[in-house]
Amino acid sequence: MNERVDGRKLRFQHRRGEVLAAATEHALEQGLDDLSLRKVAHTAGVSHATLVHHFATKDRLVAEIVDRVLAETLAVRDLPQDDPLRALWRRATTDEGRRYVRLFIAITGRAMYGDPAVTEAVAASMRQRTELLAAGLVGYGCPEDQALSVATALLAGLRGLFVDLLTGTDEQRVHAAFEDLIDQLERRLAGWVASR
Amino acid sequence: MNERVDGRKLRFQHRRGEVLAAATEHALEQGLDDLSLRKVAHTAGVSHATLVHHFATKDRLVAEIVDRVLAETLAVRDLPQDDPLRALWRRATTDEGRRYVRLFIAITGRAMYGDPAVTEAVAASMRQRTELLAAGLVGYGCPEDQALSVATALLAGLRGLFVDLLTGTDEQRVHAAFEDLIDQLERRLAGWVASR
Repeated sequence: MNERVDGRKLRFQHRRGEVLAAATEHALEQGLDDLSLRKVAHTAGVSHATLVHHFATKDRLVAEIVDRVLAETLAVRDLPQDDPLRALWRRATTDEGRRYVRLFIAITGRAMYGDPAVTEAVAASMRQRTELLAAGLVGYGCPEDQALSVATALLAGLRGLFVDLLTGTDEQRVHAAFEDLIDQLERRLAGWVASR
Repeated sequence: MNERVDGRKLRFQHRRGEVLAAATEHALEQGLDDLSLRKVAHTAGVSHATLVHHFATKDRLVAEIVDRVLAETLAVRDLPQDDPLRALWRRATTDEGRRYVRLFIAITGRAMYGDPAVTEAVAASMRQRTELLAAGLVGYGCPEDQALSVATALLAGLRGLFVDLLTGTDEQRVHAAFEDLIDQLERRLAGWVASR
């Protein structure tokens, strides 16, 4: 972090991040149903005015929670370069990871039923996740004109397996299916590298 | 149909099927939230007693609706043998197909949050769907010890793409991702056939 930036702005951003973290924790525990700025303010231990100052509206706050949850579930940053998707899977299948995955699935469920604020936030966040993964795949040699399709199919597979995991499907079968998904991807990676 | 079976039993089964169809239509329009035997009886134009006679409890009726919706969305029967998954995708992406897909996603969402009747029905129905697809894959030459993993990963991918389709993701990208999924499967099929 650049220490020379304006101190007041830093504190402001720091505070904003803390409030968003508390709001996300609220959603992880309570879900998005009946989420209100007043309830979040209470949980986060800040005033309603502070919340409005940082996020303006409930829709804006929900959009940021959505983006944070999707990023937490699907981010490949901070993962080992040599095997990022298995690391992502391991992280998502811990008890803490499953809390995020559960909210992630609930969020996409709401998006499907057309809560406009959520729908827009999910669409924007998923597009960004998909583009980041596509860029990563290009880095591994995936042809650019295939990268978005491959990334979309891969994220769809991961999301489907997340649902399996949380709906009580035999866990061993879900883990085996994940390994099958990764095994197929690795074969493609090898093909892309060979054809470079 | 065997004309010589007991006529009363036939009428009974016929009537039961009609009532289940009407109850499913009710769920397609209204969702599973607030579904009650009385509301379904009203929509289906039968008495509450008739509904109880056929399905005993609301949980039992919901389980049958779940099974019917999953079967309708994921059944490969009645599909052309040479390209069943593309036919399934075409069926699921029509306006009528999307009604089923939407309820299917809503149902799995509820299963995740642990409505016990729904959870059990979804788990049983998904297991059956997966086993049927696995058996189909074995018919296409998939090694038996891989069939369940491949089927699980494939259904996960399809479900994920269904969600993409219904949450307003760029449709062209979703269709391209589906083609990528099928393209990969076809390569595996070719490999399985070659190694027989």
